[in-house]
Amino acid sequence: MWGGRFASGPSALMEEINASIDIDRRLADEDIRGSKAHAEMLVATGILSAEDGAAIAQGLDRVAAEIAEGSFPFSRALEDIHMNIEARLSELIGPAAGRLHTARSRNDQVATDFRLWTRAAVARLDGQVRDLQGALIDQAERHAATILPGFTHLQAAQPVTFGHHLLAYVEMLGRDRGRLADAGRRLNECPLGAGALAGTTWPIDRHMTAAALGFDRPCANSLDAVSSRDFVLEVLAAGTILALTLSRLAEEIVLWVSAQFRFVDLPHDLTTGSSMMPQKRNPDAAELVRAKVGRVLGALTTLATVMKGLPLAYSKDMQEDKEPLFGAVDTLDLCLTAMTGMIAGMTVNETACRAAAGIGHTTATDLADHCARVLGMPFRQAHEVAGKLVARAEGLGVDVSQLALDDLKAVAPDLDESALAVLDVTHAVEARTSFGGTAPANVAAQVAEARARFLG
Amino acid sequence: MWGGRFASGPSALMEEINASIDIDRRLADEDIRGSKAHAEMLVATGILSAEDGAAIAQGLDRVAAEIAEGSFPFSRALEDIHMNIEARLSELIGPAAGRLHTARSRNDQVATDFRLWTRAAVARLDGQVRDLQGALIDQAERHAATILPGFTHLQAAQPVTFGHHLLAYVEMLGRDRGRLADAGRRLNECPLGAGALAGTTWPIDRHMTAAALGFDRPCANSLDAVSSRDFVLEVLAAGTILALTLSRLAEEIVLWVSAQFRFVDLPHDLTTGSSMMPQKRNPDAAELVRAKVGRVLGALTTLATVMKGLPLAYSKDMQEDKEPLFGAVDTLDLCLTAMTGMIAGMTVNETACRAAAGIGHTTATDLADHCARVLGMPFRQAHEVAGKLVARAEGLGVDVSQLALDDLKAVAPDLDESALAVLDVTHAVEARTSFGGTAPANVAAQVAEARARFLG
Amino acid sequence: MWGGRFASGPSALMEEINASIDIDRRLADEDIRGSKAHAEMLVATGILSAEDGAAIAQGLDRVAAEIAEGSFPFSRALEDIHMNIEARLSELIGPAAGRLHTARSRNDQVATDFRLWTRAAVARLDGQVRDLQGALIDQAERHAATILPGFTHLQAAQPVTFGHHLLAYVEMLGRDRGRLADAGRRLNECPLGAGALAGTTWPIDRHMTAAALGFDRPCANSLDAVSSRDFVLEVLAAGTILALTLSRLAEEIVLWVSAQFRFVDLPHDLTTGSSMMPQKRNPDAAELVRAKVGRVLGALTTLATVMKGLPLAYSKDMQEDKEPLFGAVDTLDLCLTAMTGMIAGMTVNETACRAAAGIGHTTATDLADHCARVLGMPFRQAHEVAGKLVARAEGLGVDVSQLALDDLKAVAPDLDESALAVLDVTHAVEARTSFGGTAPANVAAQVAEARARFLG
Amino acid sequence: MWGGRFASGPSALMEEINASIDIDRRLADEDIRGSKAHAEMLVATGILSAEDGAAIAQGLDRVAAEIAEGSFPFSRALEDIHMNIEARLSELIGPAAGRLHTARSRNDQVATDFRLWTRAAVARLDGQVRDLQGALIDQAERHAATILPGFTHLQAAQPVTFGHHLLAYVEMLGRDRGRLADAGRRLNECPLGAGALAGTTWPIDRHMTAAALGFDRPCANSLDAVSSRDFVLEVLAAGTILALTLSRLAEEIVLWVSAQFRFVDLPHDLTTGSSMMPQKRNPDAAELVRAKVGRVLGALTTLATVMKGLPLAYSKDMQEDKEPLFGAVDTLDLCLTAMTGMIAGMTVNETACRAAAGIGHTTATDLADHCARVLGMPFRQAHEVAGKLVARAEGLGVDVSQLALDDLKAVAPDLDESALAVLDVTHAVEARTSFGGTAPANVAAQVAEARARFLG
Repeated sequence: MWGGRFASGPSALMEEINASIDIDRRLADEDIRGSKAHAEMLVATGILSAEDGAAIAQGLDRVAAEIAEGSFPFSRALEDIHMNIEARLSELIGPAAGRLHTARSRNDQVATDFRLWTRAAVARLDGQVRDLQGALIDQAERHAATILPGFTHLQAAQPVTFGHHLLAYVEMLGRDRGRLADAGRRLNECPLGAGALAGTTWPIDRHMTAAALGFDRPCANSLDAVSSRDFVLEVLAAGTILALTLSRLAEEIVLWVSAQFRFVDLPHDLTTGSSMMPQKRNPDAAELVRAKVGRVLGALTTLATVMKGLPLAYSKDMQEDKEPLFGAVDTLDLCLTAMTGMIAGMTVNETACRAAAGIGHTTATDLADHCARVLGMPFRQAHEVAGKLVARAEGLGVDVSQLALDDLKAVAPDLDESALAVLDVTHAVEARTSFGGTAPANVAAQVAEARARFLG
Repeated sequence: MWGGRFASGPSALMEEINASIDIDRRLADEDIRGSKAHAEMLVATGILSAEDGAAIAQGLDRVAAEIAEGSFPFSRALEDIHMNIEARLSELIGPAAGRLHTARSRNDQVATDFRLWTRAAVARLDGQVRDLQGALIDQAERHAATILPGFTHLQAAQPVTFGHHLLAYVEMLGRDRGRLADAGRRLNECPLGAGALAGTTWPIDRHMTAAALGFDRPCANSLDAVSSRDFVLEVLAAGTILALTLSRLAEEIVLWVSAQFRFVDLPHDLTTGSSMMPQKRNPDAAELVRAKVGRVLGALTTLATVMKGLPLAYSKDMQEDKEPLFGAVDTLDLCLTAMTGMIAGMTVNETACRAAAGIGHTTATDLADHCARVLGMPFRQAHEVAGKLVARAEGLGVDVSQLALDDLKAVAPDLDESALAVLDVTHAVEARTSFGGTAPANVAAQVAEARARFLG
Repeated sequence: MWGGRFASGPSALMEEINASIDIDRRLADEDIRGSKAHAEMLVATGILSAEDGAAIAQGLDRVAAEIAEGSFPFSRALEDIHMNIEARLSELIGPAAGRLHTARSRNDQVATDFRLWTRAAVARLDGQVRDLQGALIDQAERHAATILPGFTHLQAAQPVTFGHHLLAYVEMLGRDRGRLADAGRRLNECPLGAGALAGTTWPIDRHMTAAALGFDRPCANSLDAVSSRDFVLEVLAAGTILALTLSRLAEEIVLWVSAQFRFVDLPHDLTTGSSMMPQKRNPDAAELVRAKVGRVLGALTTLATVMKGLPLAYSKDMQEDKEPLFGAVDTLDLCLTAMTGMIAGMTVNETACRAAAGIGHTTATDLADHCARVLGMPFRQAHEVAGKLVARAEGLGVDVSQLALDDLKAVAPDLDESALAVLDVTHAVEARTSFGGTAPANVAAQVAEARARFLG
Repeated sequence: MWGGRFASGPSALMEEINASIDIDRRLADEDIRGSKAHAEMLVATGILSAEDGAAIAQGLDRVAAEIAEGSFPFSRALEDIHMNIEARLSELIGPAAGRLHTARSRNDQVATDFRLWTRAAVARLDGQVRDLQGALIDQAERHAATILPGFTHLQAAQPVTFGHHLLAYVEMLGRDRGRLADAGRRLNECPLGAGALAGTTWPIDRHMTAAALGFDRPCANSLDAVSSRDFVLEVLAAGTILALTLSRLAEEIVLWVSAQFRFVDLPHDLTTGSSMMPQKRNPDAAELVRAKVGRVLGALTTLATVMKGLPLAYSKDMQEDKEPLFGAVDTLDLCLTAMTGMIAGMTVNETACRAAAGIGHTTATDLADHCARVLGMPFRQAHEVAGKLVARAEGLGVDVSQLALDDLKAVAPDLDESALAVLDVTHAVEARTSFGGTAPANVAAQVAEARARFLG
C-alpha cells in the first residue's frame, strides 16, 4: 500500500492501532462520490483518458452496489475506507484503478469525504430540530392559556402560560439551528486537490471538483485544507449547546412527571418499569436525553484535546476526528427523536398546573406593581409593602392571594378592592402583555410568528 | 435589599458564597448604560415623571464618574454591581432612585448588561485577530519564495514556501473571525423588559430600549430572555477554537526556535532566561500561548457543566457565567497580543529552512508524478518506483535528489535527464501552481487577496 | 535576572504574559520555608558558610514578616514570587543572598513550593469534608426514623428513612476523603535538589531537605521531579469527584425546599430574596454549590489540556498549573462551608415527608415480596400480581396501600389480612433490616459506626 | 418485563433510546457470576430451595456456554444483558428462573456487575503499565551512559543520559499504577443486596455474596450502593492522567524520529507510509498514542457531566456510565501495547544524541557552578559570568565548550585550565551524582532499584 520503500508490512499491533476501517466505513458513499468527481475532472483536464475514466466510474458504481447490498469485503489490513475501495476497484477494473490516485493524496481525500458527511449530518440535524420546534409550537398553541407556576430558583415566582414556557425552547432551538447553519455554510469549501499538503504539479481544475460536489468553492490554501478540523469542532460545539438545550427541557419533564409536580403525563409507551418495583413508570427517555449531553460535550473535549498544539500539516492524530463526530451526531439524532416524541405525546394536567400556580404567593409582584402604579410609591417601597403582606399571609397560613382587604389595609391603608383583583393568577397572566410577555394573547400571536419563522 | 419578607439579613457565609461584586464590577459601564436607557423609556411611556427621569440620569452619570475616578464605595454586603449602583444612586438622589427598578428585575438587567459586555468583547477580539492576520500576511509577503520543508507527521513531506505556510493560519483565523461575528450577531437581542421571567404589566416599550442600546430587536420570549446563556457558550466555543489555532502556531514556533530546527529567531525581548542555566533563551511567550488554550476550553467546560439540566427560568447557577467568559476573553486578548508580537518580530533563517527542505527525500512525490506523467505509469506503479529509488538513496546515504541518472535508470530504465530536474527543491515548489498550491507566484497572489478579504 | 547573556530586558508585553506574581504570591510562605531548609542544608554540607546561612535565615524571616504585615513590595517586573523574595533578600542582606540559589533552580524550587501548598490544601479540605460528615451524621441521628419517599428516576420508589438517605452521602464523602488522602500521600516526595532538570554537581543532601520539609523522601529522578504535575491533576480529579458529590446533595436541597416537595426548610439567613418578587426566598447557596462543580471540572480540563503532549523537562506551559488548583481549592472550600451550614441548619418537615412517602404505591414491592414469600410464587409472578394491584388502585384513584382485602383477593385470591400489613409505609421501612438497609434500627447502628470510622 | 401495570410495551423509539444491550453485553460473564453467587446465597439462607438453586446454576452455566460459543440469541427488545440472560434462563429451566430475582433489583445487580468488570480492567491495565515499565527499564539499562541533550522549553539545557530520561517515565508510570491500585481497592465493596435502593425484607446474607465475588465487604449503605458511580469516575481520572503520561512520551518519540532530531529509529513495522509520498515513514503509532488522551479525557468529561446534579437514588442517566469506561479502557489497552512495542523496539542513535548534547552551550551551568565553587563567587555572580562567556561564544560562532582558556580569562581572569574540564559534556553528566541526578552510575543503581520496586 505504501510502495517501494517498505521492506515489510506493518506489524499486527500497528494494524490494530492504525486501522480506522471500523469507523470510517461510514464515509463509503462520500468517498465514492469524491472519487467519481475527481476522475471526471482528471478526464476533463486531459490527465486521464476517457476510457480509464469510464472504467473507473463503472467500477466505483459496482463498489457502491456491493457496499449497499452488504457483499463488500471490508479488510482491516487495508487500513481505511479509501484503501479498501481502491483495492477493490483494482480487483474489478485492473491497472486503470492505479491512475485514480493521480494528483490526490489521502489527506485531501479524507478531508473532502468528511466535509461531505458533516454537511449532510448538519442538514439532517436541522430537520430534526425543526420537527421538535413543530411539536413544541403545536403544544404551545394548545396551551396558550394554560396556567402553571413560573419558577426561578425552582421557587414559584410568577404564573406563566404553558405555551409561553414551551415557546422559550422554540427560541433557543432556533438559535441552535442558526449555529448549525453557520457551521454548514462555513465548512462548505472543497479540500480536494490540495494533495498531501502543498498542492500538485498536475494541471487539475479544483473549481470543477468543488462544484461537482456541491461546495461553494475550493479551499484557498492547500496546507489549511488538509490540516484544519475546526469545521468538526464547530459542529461539535453547536451540538453541545443544542444538547444542553435538550438537557434542560428533559430535566423539566423529569420534574413535571414526578408525583410532586404532576404537571404532565407521558404516553405509557415512552416510559419504562422496574424489575423489582411493580408500580414504577419511569421517564427513562427524558433522563437519557438529560444525560447524553455528557457524551456530546465529551466528544468536543476529545477533539479539542487532540488538536491542541498540533503543528501543520496533517498528523495522524487527526484520524481521531471521526469517532467523536459520528458519536455526537448519532446521539443528537436519538435525543431529538425522543424529545419530539415526548413533546408531541405528552398530556398536560391543566388542573394540577393551575393549582400549583396559586401556591407560593406568585402574584406578590403584581401587588407591588399595583402599589407603585396606583399609590405612586417608588417600586422599592412597594416591594417592601408587598413583602410584608406575604409575611402576613404566611403567618395566617394562606397564600397572599387569599388575603382579605382588611389584611391589605393593615399594611397599606390606602389600598382598596382593586388590589384584590391583581392578586388573581389569571389576571396576573393576562396582564403581562408587554412584548415577549406571557399573556395568552401574546402566546397566540407568537405561535403564528414562530410557525412563519421556523417552519415556513 | 429583598424587602419586607425577611426578618434578618443573610449570614456572613451567605454573603461570602453569594456575592458576585468582585466579578461583576466589570459590568459597571454596561449597567449604567442599561439603566439610563430603561429610565428614558419609562419617561417616554409615562411610567416615570420627567423630573425623576432627569434625576436618575444625572445620578447615574455621577456614579459613572465615581467609578471612573476610583472613588466608588464597592460593598460586598450589597452583593452585586446592580445593587451597588442602585444603593449609591439612592444616596445621591433619594427616593426617585427607588423608581428606577419599576418594570425591571435583576434577571433581565444582568442579562442585558452581560450581552452588552460580550458584544463589545467580541468586537475587540475581532480587531485583535485581524491584527494578527495583518502580521502574518506581511511576513507571508516577505517570504513568498522562502522554502522550508512541509511536514506531515512531523516527517519531511514536500517543500513548501514559508509564505504559504503562514497564509494557512490566515485562512484559519478568518474562519475564527467568522465564528466570532456570527456569535456577536446572534446575541444582539435585548432582554430588557423581560422582568423576572414573565414580562410585566407596565406599558413599557421594549423596542425603544433595544434600539437605544444598539440591539437589533428585543428578545421575543421573556422566559428565554432571562434563562438562556447559549450566547456565552457560543463565544466560549468560538474562543476555544481560536485558542486551538493559536496553540498550533505556538507549537510551531517552539519547534522552529529549537536548536534542532533553527528556522526562526524571536526578538530577545520576547524570550526569557533561566535562573540556573546562563545560556538559556526560552520562547516562554509561545509556550504560554500553547498552554492557555487549556484555560479557554476549561471555561467552556465550566459553563457547559453549569447549564446542564437547569430548568427554566433563572437559577442562581447562572451567576457562574461571568468568570469563565471574563477569564477566557482576557486570556485570548493576551495570547493574540503576544502572538502578533512574535509573528511581527520574528526573523526567518532562510538558509536553515532551505537546507532542511533538501533533507528527507522531499521531492520523491515529484519523481513519482514525473514517472506517471512522462512514462504513462499508473500513479500507484509510479509511487512504487519512486519508493524504490528512495530506498536506493538511503542505502547510498544520500538524499533522493542527489541520485545520479544511472541510479534512476537502475530502477526505471526509461527515465532520462528530465527526471533529475524534478528532484530539485526549488522546482518542486515552483511547479505547484494548482489553485491553493504552494508556488511563490500563488503566494504572492494570495497575499493580495488575503489583504482584500481580511484587512480591507 | 537572567544574567549575562541578555542585552536587554523583556518587553512590556513579555512581562505581561510572563509574570505570575499575581497568582503565585500565594506560595510566599512555602517559598520561604523551602529556602530556609535549602540554606540549612547548604551549611550542613559545607557549601555555604555558617555566617551566610545565618544571614540568609534572618533575611528570610524579615521577608516573611514584611509579607505578613503587608509591607512587602511585590513587583511584576520581578516576574514571580521566587525572584521577588530573592531580590528583596538581596536588598536586605547583600551578596550573601546571591549564594542561596546555589545548587538550585527555579524549576525544583517551584515544584517544591507547590507540593507544600498542595499538601496543606489537601489536609484543609479533608477537615472540611469531615465537618460536613459530622453535620450529616448529626442530622441522620435526629432523623433515623423519619420516613420520606425514596426515589428512583425521581419517581417514588420505596419509603426510606431520612437518616439513611443522609448516611449515603457520608459514605460518598468518606471515599472522597480517601481520594484526597491518597493524593496527599503520593505527592509527598521532595523535588528540591533536582536542579533545572539533571541534578547538580554540588554535594547536596536531598534527604536532609526532604525531611526538614516534612516529605517522606526526595523524588528519585530529577527529570521527573521538575516535569511532572500529575500530583496537581490528581487533586483536581479528586476535587471534581467531591464537587460532584456536593452537586448531587445540592440538587436534592433545591428540590426539597421547593413548594412541590417542602421536605426541608433552610434557615432564613442562608436564603436570599428577589429584587422584583417580594415573596421569594431562594436557596442560592444550594444552587451555587450545584453549579460550582463546573469550575472544578473546568480546572481539571484546563490542566489536562496544558499537560497534553508536553515533552520533558520543564516547559513554561506548566506555569498554568497554579491558577486552576488555587481556584478549585477556593471553590471547594466555599462549597463545603456552605453545605455544612445548610445541612446543620436545615429543618426537616417530618409530616410532609411522611405524607409524600404514602403516595406513588411505594409499598408495591413489599406486596410482591409478600406474595413470593407467603404464597410461594416465583418473584417474577409476584411482581406481575403486585403490578395488577397497582393498576387496580390507580383505577380506583387510591394508593395501593389503601386497597381493601377484597381488592387484593380479586387479583390474588389466596391473599389474606397479613398482606394489608406489608402495605404500610412504616412497616416497609422497619422490615428492611438487611445489611445496609433503611430500617431505623440499622440507621442508628450506622450512625454510631460512621462516627467511629469518620470522626473518631 | 415490567409486569402487570403496563398495558402496552414500549414504543420502537423507546426501545431504541433505552436499549443498552449493544454496550452492556460485555458484562455477560460478570452478570452470570453475580447471579450464581446470589442464587447460592438464597439457597444458603433458605429463601430458595436447593433444587431451584441447582437448576438456576446449571441453567446459567448453559447460558455462559452459549455466549462463549456465540449462539446466544441477544435481543434488543429485552433491553439489557440482565434481562437477556434471565429471559434465556427462563426458556431453559422454566419457572425456577423467576425466583432468581428474589431480593434483588437490576439496580444492585448492574452495580455489582460493573464493579466486577472494572476491578478486572484495573488489574489488566496495571499489568500492561508494568510491562511498559519493564521495556523502559531495559532500555534505560542499555543506555545508562548514552548522552543526549536535556531540554527545558525545548531549548537545550543540560546534558542528561538517555537512561535517566526513560527512568523519569518509569517513576510517572509507577504513580499511575498507584492511582489505579487505589481505585481498585476503593471500589471493592459489594452492592449486591441493596435492592432497588432501600435494602430488602428478605433475610439475605450480603457478606456471603460479597465474599463469594471477591469483594472486601458489602457496601454499608443501600442508597449509596446503587446511586454512586465515583468508582468509575476515579478509574477514568486515573486513566486520564496515565494517558497524559503516555501522550508526553509519544510526543517525544515524534520529535526524536524527525529528521531534525534523529535521536531514535522505530522498527519499520511500527511505522506507516503515504499514499502519495513514496519516501514517507511515519510514526503513526506514536501520534495516535499522543492523540488518544483526548478520548480518555472526553470519557471523564462525559461521565462527570452525566453525574452532575443527579438526585438519589438510581436514575437512568447512570446507564451512560459504561460506554465511556469501556472506550477508555480499550483505548488505554491499545496505547499501552503500542507504546511498549515502540519502546522495546526502538534503536537509539547514540552518535546523533551525543552530538546534539554538545550544541546549545549545555555546560554553561557547570561553568557557573565552577566559578562559584572554585572562585567563591555568589552563584548569582557566577551565573552572570557564565552568561557573558556564552555571549562571547555566540559571537565567535562556537559552543561555549569550545572556548579557549584565553576566552575564559577575558571575562573571568582567575579561571584556569580546570574550567575547561567542566565544559565537557561527559564530565557534566558524570558529575551529577546528587541523589536522583543523571550520572551514569546513578542510572545503573536506579535501574536495579526500579526493577525491585516495580517489577519484583
